[in-house]
Amino acid sequence: MAGKAWGGRFSEPTNEQVELFTESISFDARLAAVDVKGSQAHARMLAEVGLISKEEADQIQTALDEILIEIQQGKIEFSPSLEDIHMHIESALIARLGDVGRKLHTGRSRNDQVSTDIKLYVRDEIDHLDKLLQQLQRAFVSRDDDLDLILPGYTHLQRAQPVNAVHYWLAYTEKFQRDRERLADCRRRLNFSPLGAAALAGTTLPIDRDQTAKDLGFTAPAANSLDISSDRDYLAELVSSLSLIAIHLSSWAEEWILWCTTEFGFMTLSDAYTTGSSIMPQKKNPDVLELIRGKSARVIAASQQLFVLMKGLPLAYNRDLQEDKLAAFAAIDTIKSCLELAPSIVINAKLNRDKIASRIDDGFLDATALMEYLILRQVPMRTGHEIVGNLVALCESKNCRLKDLSLEEFQKTAPQIDNDVYDVLGAENAVSALRSFGSGGHDSVRHQLKLWQDRLAEN
Amino acid sequence: MAGKAWGGRFSEPTNEQVELFTESISFDARLAAVDVKGSQAHARMLAEVGLISKEEADQIQTALDEILIEIQQGKIEFSPSLEDIHMHIESALIARLGDVGRKLHTGRSRNDQVSTDIKLYVRDEIDHLDKLLQQLQRAFVSRDDDLDLILPGYTHLQRAQPVNAVHYWLAYTEKFQRDRERLADCRRRLNFSPLGAAALAGTTLPIDRDQTAKDLGFTAPAANSLDISSDRDYLAELVSSLSLIAIHLSSWAEEWILWCTTEFGFMTLSDAYTTGSSIMPQKKNPDVLELIRGKSARVIAASQQLFVLMKGLPLAYNRDLQEDKLAAFAAIDTIKSCLELAPSIVINAKLNRDKIASRIDDGFLDATALMEYLILRQVPMRTGHEIVGNLVALCESKNCRLKDLSLEEFQKTAPQIDNDVYDVLGAENAVSALRSFGSGGHDSVRHQLKLWQDRLAEN
Amino acid sequence: MAGKAWGGRFSEPTNEQVELFTESISFDARLAAVDVKGSQAHARMLAEVGLISKEEADQIQTALDEILIEIQQGKIEFSPSLEDIHMHIESALIARLGDVGRKLHTGRSRNDQVSTDIKLYVRDEIDHLDKLLQQLQRAFVSRDDDLDLILPGYTHLQRAQPVNAVHYWLAYTEKFQRDRERLADCRRRLNFSPLGAAALAGTTLPIDRDQTAKDLGFTAPAANSLDISSDRDYLAELVSSLSLIAIHLSSWAEEWILWCTTEFGFMTLSDAYTTGSSIMPQKKNPDVLELIRGKSARVIAASQQLFVLMKGLPLAYNRDLQEDKLAAFAAIDTIKSCLELAPSIVINAKLNRDKIASRIDDGFLDATALMEYLILRQVPMRTGHEIVGNLVALCESKNCRLKDLSLEEFQKTAPQIDNDVYDVLGAENAVSALRSFGSGGHDSVRHQLKLWQDRLAEN
Amino acid sequence: MAGKAWGGRFSEPTNEQVELFTESISFDARLAAVDVKGSQAHARMLAEVGLISKEEADQIQTALDEILIEIQQGKIEFSPSLEDIHMHIESALIARLGDVGRKLHTGRSRNDQVSTDIKLYVRDEIDHLDKLLQQLQRAFVSRDDDLDLILPGYTHLQRAQPVNAVHYWLAYTEKFQRDRERLADCRRRLNFSPLGAAALAGTTLPIDRDQTAKDLGFTAPAANSLDISSDRDYLAELVSSLSLIAIHLSSWAEEWILWCTTEFGFMTLSDAYTTGSSIMPQKKNPDVLELIRGKSARVIAASQQLFVLMKGLPLAYNRDLQEDKLAAFAAIDTIKSCLELAPSIVINAKLNRDKIASRIDDGFLDATALMEYLILRQVPMRTGHEIVGNLVALCESKNCRLKDLSLEEFQKTAPQIDNDVYDVLGAENAVSALRSFGSGGHDSVRHQLKLWQDRLAEN
Repeated sequence: MAGKAWGGRFSEPTNEQVELFTESISFDARLAAVDVKGSQAHARMLAEVGLISKEEADQIQTALDEILIEIQQGKIEFSPSLEDIHMHIESALIARLGDVGRKLHTGRSRNDQVSTDIKLYVRDEIDHLDKLLQQLQRAFVSRDDDLDLILPGYTHLQRAQPVNAVHYWLAYTEKFQRDRERLADCRRRLNFSPLGAAALAGTTLPIDRDQTAKDLGFTAPAANSLDISSDRDYLAELVSSLSLIAIHLSSWAEEWILWCTTEFGFMTLSDAYTTGSSIMPQKKNPDVLELIRGKSARVIAASQQLFVLMKGLPLAYNRDLQEDKLAAFAAIDTIKSCLELAPSIVINAKLNRDKIASRIDDGFLDATALMEYLILRQVPMRTGHEIVGNLVALCESKNCRLKDLSLEEFQKTAPQIDNDVYDVLGAENAVSALRSFGSGGHDSVRHQLKLWQDRLAEN
Repeated sequence: MAGKAWGGRFSEPTNEQVELFTESISFDARLAAVDVKGSQAHARMLAEVGLISKEEADQIQTALDEILIEIQQGKIEFSPSLEDIHMHIESALIARLGDVGRKLHTGRSRNDQVSTDIKLYVRDEIDHLDKLLQQLQRAFVSRDDDLDLILPGYTHLQRAQPVNAVHYWLAYTEKFQRDRERLADCRRRLNFSPLGAAALAGTTLPIDRDQTAKDLGFTAPAANSLDISSDRDYLAELVSSLSLIAIHLSSWAEEWILWCTTEFGFMTLSDAYTTGSSIMPQKKNPDVLELIRGKSARVIAASQQLFVLMKGLPLAYNRDLQEDKLAAFAAIDTIKSCLELAPSIVINAKLNRDKIASRIDDGFLDATALMEYLILRQVPMRTGHEIVGNLVALCESKNCRLKDLSLEEFQKTAPQIDNDVYDVLGAENAVSALRSFGSGGHDSVRHQLKLWQDRLAEN
Repeated sequence: MAGKAWGGRFSEPTNEQVELFTESISFDARLAAVDVKGSQAHARMLAEVGLISKEEADQIQTALDEILIEIQQGKIEFSPSLEDIHMHIESALIARLGDVGRKLHTGRSRNDQVSTDIKLYVRDEIDHLDKLLQQLQRAFVSRDDDLDLILPGYTHLQRAQPVNAVHYWLAYTEKFQRDRERLADCRRRLNFSPLGAAALAGTTLPIDRDQTAKDLGFTAPAANSLDISSDRDYLAELVSSLSLIAIHLSSWAEEWILWCTTEFGFMTLSDAYTTGSSIMPQKKNPDVLELIRGKSARVIAASQQLFVLMKGLPLAYNRDLQEDKLAAFAAIDTIKSCLELAPSIVINAKLNRDKIASRIDDGFLDATALMEYLILRQVPMRTGHEIVGNLVALCESKNCRLKDLSLEEFQKTAPQIDNDVYDVLGAENAVSALRSFGSGGHDSVRHQLKLWQDRLAEN
Repeated sequence: MAGKAWGGRFSEPTNEQVELFTESISFDARLAAVDVKGSQAHARMLAEVGLISKEEADQIQTALDEILIEIQQGKIEFSPSLEDIHMHIESALIARLGDVGRKLHTGRSRNDQVSTDIKLYVRDEIDHLDKLLQQLQRAFVSRDDDLDLILPGYTHLQRAQPVNAVHYWLAYTEKFQRDRERLADCRRRLNFSPLGAAALAGTTLPIDRDQTAKDLGFTAPAANSLDISSDRDYLAELVSSLSLIAIHLSSWAEEWILWCTTEFGFMTLSDAYTTGSSIMPQKKNPDVLELIRGKSARVIAASQQLFVLMKGLPLAYNRDLQEDKLAAFAAIDTIKSCLELAPSIVINAKLNRDKIASRIDDGFLDATALMEYLILRQVPMRTGHEIVGNLVALCESKNCRLKDLSLEEFQKTAPQIDNDVYDVLGAENAVSALRSFGSGGHDSVRHQLKLWQDRLAEN
């Protein structure tokens, strides 16, 4: 069992099929850079506390730098028999340095090493995701040309009240802001160093976990080795947060897919973000948006995968946890690929102003404004609601709009109504009248947009 | 359609089966108190800005107090035809106050009202959950009598290294601490007021959202009405956090179920927390722990339910979201019921010291300590690993323990070994030698326990 | 421990909180009728093999009949301290019959008893679900008045090709047919009797499992007691099948929600199946359809709950499994409630023929028919696809339809085109030309409708 | 847009990033063989009905054979700009045959083509999975040397009653048999041909769907083109069935992981199926079993991914569905890799007879047999249960076994007990006394084993 890090007590070689089944090099190779970084910090610390010499530490660091370059250049062939990236790197190190290389794993185990690597990797990914989310927010707030446009607002997918078009863009900006904050919380919480917890119990050697923690940018070493050896909370929390990003993306995609239908007709996507049909020559399909919606399933499933994986495992490390990376990496990659495309789609989408305007007065979007007009004339809200309900029914029977009713017709139902009622009727009037904080009215939206543009301004 | 809040334009009555299908009173009645609280704040604000009179606001507040008491006393009968708790309360208010009652819903919609209610409710539940988690942590750290006990630590469920028994208790304390922090983050993030966002667009009425936000203990009003109307992030985030609590509970339960087997024999649960068999008279089953493990499935499923529910919904409110409460309440109730029982189980469990001690030297728990002994004698780690592997194989062939080997036998394999090797052999020696920060050694564990006891001390 | 079935060896009473935590009477009371049925069959068998007397069996059967009636009349109070429905019934039996009642549980355990009960219950529910699905299919195929109507067919939610309206109804009929077949397979597979497997090992008593199996309508007794004691496959399979029903319902609901928008305008639901808004007087919301879509999340989550519950449990029965019923019952109830409403919605929905017709020639629905016209004139398919793509681009630049192009314009691009091209242009011509088996053409749809109407005809 | 199958009406080229985002060639290349098979059948049919000439069909078939070989030899480079395997093959065909190649896609669309391919692929995989499951069953039933061994049976992981060791093997054999039947049902249900449904509406061309269905081994063509275009039921059903296989594997893995602990000590796995630790030299970890348990999470997550993906999609094809393959292939590959390893693990595992025997009389495994002894002496079951409960409590206080009690002690509690009681006491006696159908008694197990060996005999 010469090739294995753990072969000492084994008499039978590992079955080759088993090697293929248990390997992780096919998906953890991406950890090479953080593994080297962690090992270098570990070597520096070993030298500091005297477990290896300063010279040995230097040799190790230099060799690891070289090995990483070779890996990045594809010069090191990966083999299932060396299991994972950690063993590939350590083997290469021992091949170069002999006994000096054999000392690197002093005072640590793969359990703490792997967790350190994943945390370093995930920390970088979170930083990158934050930038991508910010770019998407910037794409939305860059659409200030839409400030003079009114869109129907929907509840139950029924036309409800009119809002300034930019109100939509800011709604998604708010959602992605919460996503960024969730990621930041996750990052802060995971940022405690596993290194030196060893297998599950710590070590009898005089290592300095504070030093490696500090060296690697962690807040402090995590405080319980059994916890460290078994902990994957940070991946579950991360992927749950990614699931909410996926949900937000799926809602946005659904909305714009609807807007791109012949029936809604609100929006035209740039050709670059659509594809055609292999049989129907006229089709221009919003495939990218559909895939963004569909890919949410993959992220959500990854969060479930992690929960199922972790459920019912006793302390401490169990090999089941190796599968954590498959779920987490799939979720991270999927969200990144969606976020990389989304800003261009947002920026390049064209609202079809004429089509929107031509139907903006369909659907009684001004009914609520009319009810509130009555409230301001002392009609109790519930009574006002019923009155306007009756007026809408009247319009439907006459196949007309509220603003098409005559003052007599209004007054027959509600004597409180005066000639100034026409100032709140029609979508344009109704949206202009909106005035509460956070509303879809022009002033409110302009104010919020300014706040967001300032907040997201590039330094 | 007299009974309905929205009956004005409808000509056909709602189908009775539809009422049963769409009602939520059977599960949202628990929101009565927060609904009243929210409506009272809303009424105060309406008076402040002049939309109703000060006197009307007082009448409304008093009547709502009375209605809440009647609901709590079971004097108000719930009916599916009144749909939800909000309509039950408003109907009762109108029945008492007539037109004054009809004014309460001014400048708000059920959409913002429901979200306000859920946030108020969930905020209280988070505070309660935090207390329950703290109690469970206290239960673990109260077991300082176990400080003189050594337990095997496991990886892969194989005996690995020995640790101080309390190291186990602190591992779970760490996990539940992260859970508390996740809940706190969730609470902070959700604490923005939906009230006054109305249906989806805000309102044309001069309401003051800052006042109601402040009055209800929110940080500020949420800033985008479309976002508010569609947002259920806070429930998804909460239930994902609850899922991690469930995972931690399931791991702990699994571990103790194992420890209660005849085979492990480490632990005896109090009779009060076990049950028997209807057929096998000798059985004493750890049912409560099994159910805690099993109930994790319900919580995890609730997180999936929320994700599936929210996926692909366009802005703003869609009725699908009504199902959010079923998922969230099930998860909250489940976790609460588990956390309410867990501390007593922890406190009353008895470790079987004799059985544990009689087998503590099984499984070569001291092998790592021996390897580290070699490292301190300048043997490269990987070489030391192989040497000890061979010594273990030797012991297995002789059916003995490491400490049973003679010095000659040691030295034949590793001449670096001296007579002082026996100072690190045996579980007791091995655990005493552990010295790294966060390790399972006696000093480390004593130190961490003290920190936790201080941190969790009741004021 | 007098009250407990298993109190013999216990010295401490069960904690009251534990009783509340472990009880299942709050959700398994619905098993009363099948529990009585199973116990009566068991008693008959015990008498047959001589373990009790014929007279005792008669007494037991009569008493169980009476107890069931009392339960159904609400005369028996449920108490958590009696845990579950099985113990309530057995306690009531012993209260009536004394020692004779104490003999009923001979040769069985709660493990096989519970599984028998669930199987009997689920079998009935499957039969009921099959009827409900059939009614929904009948509702769809009853809409033969729509045979003269053309609807746009969509892919990617873009208008694609026109189809006979009934083609939509039959698509759902096909899907629900597969659902029925899945349920039938599940029923057949679960129909093996657990009764007499006892706790996990079978029994030393001379029971006759064949007799009880036959008596209760099972195909045969299941063949391995360890398997029986641990098996919940049938619930997982059932709920996975229900999840597909939920998926189909959610798709149908989504589609009709779209069709009910102002923008699509294809459909008007009966007032009885919609509700209004508490603030917007004009709203008529498709709440029932939205809830059907939303409730799919509950069913899907139930399938996840069962998988998580069962994952990693060793043989045989573990108490975790008690939670199976919560998941399964929630899924069954949810699907039933949806299926009970769906047929009326289908039957009462009104297609807005004028609106549909007025826009049926939007979106180049005839482009594929034109391409196939070219293929029949020997143009290779890929070439034809490109030609029609160019013609569509031409129409878009001219803002016209394909049928508005002149023959010269056609021939400039494709000289193969002749005057008869106008016979396939326009949605009506395009749908009439469809002729392949299973297509949306008039003849094909009429043929399939007839087949379905015959297949679903009431006897 | 020359390269695209659908470029005719597009003016802007597809964004390169979009190509990478929307491509599926990286995961659908494995469909090459079935795609060729389906296209060849399609070409034969086109010739038969006269849409292409016989000679053209021959050319196409020959070229496709060659292309497949080139793909299998890695001679065709895959490129995201050609999207998927179907376009790669068609492009290669057109490159060879020019206009003849351009005719292949006549009367079909990628929608029906893809679904046909997946069905053909999945059908083969199901056949393969059935074989693998059968091999695993054979591995279990090959362990007839264990027939003379008694193992404790557990409920709640507490020792319950003794059973013949082979009873365990047959329990899993039963579970995997149900899995095989579920797969067979899924195969039968999916075996209807999509080919010729085209995009969603069928075609105006005179294709013969019966012929291609027959040619490709389908039962018949599926009957509704809208259904076909949107249907992924078969993948959801398949992956749900695979989830149950995963659950069964996870239970088996959990059980054997327990049995391999120092504490249980029942079993030793072959070295070939375990691995060691990078730090603890003595460890021999059941990694393969742990990974089998952990990989269940991936399969379960895949079933959720499919459900989430399909939820709420309107008819017919939506691009979201492209993600179906990622989920289904991951689930299939995972289960296959587990099933390929499992039989060897089963065959090579060694039961530690001495350790098992030395503790087989721990845990009162004979208590139920004693209770049934009392029942046969006319003691009512519930009374017998209580008597034995008291006897067990007596033994616990005396720290002895039931068979260690004297006849006087027995008779003091239960005068019905006679000297022959010792014939049922002890695990060996207790298991010998088991006699019900499907029980864990020696005769029953021997009988069932024989049935299974016959059933699984290789032809």
